[in-house]
Amino acid sequence: MSQQKRRYFDHAATTSVRPEVLEAIVDVYENHYGNPSSFYEEGHDAENLLLEARQRVAKNINAKPDEIFFTSCGTESDNWALKGTAFALQKKGKHIITSKIEHHAILHTAEWLEKQGFEVTYLDVDEYGMVRPEDVEAALRDDTILVSIMMANNEVGTLQPIKEIGAICKAHKVRFHSDAVQALGAIPIDVEDLGVDMLSFSAHKLYGPKGVGVLYLRRGNRLDNLLHGGAQEKGKRGGTENVALIQGFAKALDLAVADLDQEAKRQIDLRDRLIKAIGTSIPFAKLNGHPSKRLPNNINFSFEFIEGESMLILLDYQGFACSSGSACTSASLDPSHVLLAMGLPHEIAHGSLRMTIGRETSLEDIDALAEALPPIIQRLRDMSPLWEDWENGKIKNSLIPEYSEY
Amino acid sequence: MSQQKRRYFDHAATTSVRPEVLEAIVDVYENHYGNPSSFYEEGHDAENLLLEARQRVAKNINAKPDEIFFTSCGTESDNWALKGTAFALQKKGKHIITSKIEHHAILHTAEWLEKQGFEVTYLDVDEYGMVRPEDVEAALRDDTILVSIMMANNEVGTLQPIKEIGAICKAHKVRFHSDAVQALGAIPIDVEDLGVDMLSFSAHKLYGPKGVGVLYLRRGNRLDNLLHGGAQEKGKRGGTENVALIQGFAKALDLAVADLDQEAKRQIDLRDRLIKAIGTSIPFAKLNGHPSKRLPNNINFSFEFIEGESMLILLDYQGFACSSGSACTSASLDPSHVLLAMGLPHEIAHGSLRMTIGRETSLEDIDALAEALPPIIQRLRDMSPLWEDWENGKIKNSLIPEYSEY
Repeated sequence: MSQQKRRYFDHAATTSVRPEVLEAIVDVYENHYGNPSSFYEEGHDAENLLLEARQRVAKNINAKPDEIFFTSCGTESDNWALKGTAFALQKKGKHIITSKIEHHAILHTAEWLEKQGFEVTYLDVDEYGMVRPEDVEAALRDDTILVSIMMANNEVGTLQPIKEIGAICKAHKVRFHSDAVQALGAIPIDVEDLGVDMLSFSAHKLYGPKGVGVLYLRRGNRLDNLLHGGAQEKGKRGGTENVALIQGFAKALDLAVADLDQEAKRQIDLRDRLIKAIGTSIPFAKLNGHPSKRLPNNINFSFEFIEGESMLILLDYQGFACSSGSACTSASLDPSHVLLAMGLPHEIAHGSLRMTIGRETSLEDIDALAEALPPIIQRLRDMSPLWEDWENGKIKNSLIPEYSEY
Repeated sequence: MSQQKRRYFDHAATTSVRPEVLEAIVDVYENHYGNPSSFYEEGHDAENLLLEARQRVAKNINAKPDEIFFTSCGTESDNWALKGTAFALQKKGKHIITSKIEHHAILHTAEWLEKQGFEVTYLDVDEYGMVRPEDVEAALRDDTILVSIMMANNEVGTLQPIKEIGAICKAHKVRFHSDAVQALGAIPIDVEDLGVDMLSFSAHKLYGPKGVGVLYLRRGNRLDNLLHGGAQEKGKRGGTENVALIQGFAKALDLAVADLDQEAKRQIDLRDRLIKAIGTSIPFAKLNGHPSKRLPNNINFSFEFIEGESMLILLDYQGFACSSGSACTSASLDPSHVLLAMGLPHEIAHGSLRMTIGRETSLEDIDALAEALPPIIQRLRDMSPLWEDWENGKIKNSLIPEYSEY
């Protein structure tokens, strides 16, 4: 690692583990190594830690402890929710509804289910990346067994109308799952208020460790196992429980919920300051996602006439860690499926930059990025044949207005 | 936890994390929190740790790095091996061969696949819990797509004839998977020598952390994903990589392999000392599993006329952590499916005790258990109506000889 001051603007990709969380993890490794299924002191001791963590997670989302199932990550939770429902309810129907802006853990799972004979409707979104509740209702069929719509988009931060969709699903008695990986710890989540049947969570987006997730499953919903094996997790998820990281998850969530409102407000102020700074200093820049119904930590812009990858390299070189979209696909050169679903043309989607702030992001970090970005964009435009064409008048119409209102 | 000296005899259930392993884990949490898929310094840094861990794991089993896929546990690896093969090769055939003594991660997965239209042959074993290679060959059909036989049984420790079965599968061009969760770090594993196509591993059986496993997949073998999602693990296993625990796995394996022969020899001496002590001091005690072709750390006895659960309670009370079988099913009152498959009657299988030693087990621990066990067995027999019947001559034939040769 370089000695240069680093400014981390990719909290949607992953976060660092908070010291209190690490402490909780290390305590398990050092003092509680038993297998929770074992029938002696060391086992009971580990089992107690597991029970207690389950209670804490449940309480934070207004669920019951027996509705909390620990998994290895958000991706496992998503796969389990979809495949587990599909195989459990296949005699009832084989139709699933989701959206075009879901995480690949949902989309690729849905595509695989299609190969196994299931039918999937992928809903369009509006220009802000929002699913319309009326589209969900219109897509429902007699053989629909599941609706899966994410709570907050991981690329553009748009908050989805989960409560409205939940009400529709409830009225039609169709199971409703939401990938809440980006939402947990960032916005309040109450399973009763939202009317969801299943939620996916991951610890490493909220300053917990990578490698542990949760599936919330409302009582009374049958679900096939994704991991068959021992009798762990009430027989629904085999594998020796990862007590250390589960304790880490519970601690991270407790801490996140403790000052959620205050930290969200702080981040929204920083977010909007950066949005305004970029929007007013860089021409032909477009904010992606909803202006206000968005995650407190998400800023996503498209810059016309340039490509995203070069931006990331120059920013990295100056100490800024940003992203062109989801980390899970950042190795890919394809433009973001989310931005395309929102109606952006390929060339605009390519020039996009996601900046996601976090607990340790300061006002000074925001201002440093706001200062660093315009010359980087200008430098890239100076090298760009498209920009040259624009300046020479060969391109007649810009796709983005020179300056928008922020 | 009590202040009494504890003696842990359940290393097959789980092990404590070695200090060097914990150090490797904490280093990642403190210094390398990036997402390995991210396109900047913190990401590349984490990616390097991942690449390097993959190389180390590969080297230790004579595999190539791109044949190593990190998972969340042995159970996930087993589920992936079976379901991934089944769905990838279903057009070729739908027949799978396994054995009756597999871990539930295999058996319950196979049963689920049967519900999805696959056909599974569950092979019998001999009195020592060993699969006969000729039975594998006889069960092969034109539509057989997979053979899955574990490397070492988790309850009785019997080592299976993997090399012979591997040769048969190779000759018949059928894919061969082995659950090597109990074997890794305990006996040498060389994928070329064994002729396996897939292996399942778990770190927490070899003084690594719970929550991380590996699937070894020989090049050229198609496998459907179990976890669909991002492009991680060459697109074959979605989910942000658990860099910290993966580093822990690599460290634990390096350490285990470094002194494997020496530690195995030490454990075999202790194992055989305890087997001899129990066999010669307690009447109507039967060693389960093969007398020599067994894991260095496994001792498993059945004691006639008593039930296992009471034994565990009394042993726990005196500081000994032992097991009645697999930890994953210890909450269940059913007798072990492994012991039943070996031909033990229900009443004998119920009175079974598994003692699995480990790196920190001393000669003094062995002698303490050898001394503690006979009075516990006698006390339980004194309370047992079956024992009373035997002493009164109402039971004519004991199922186990009074003393066997050890």
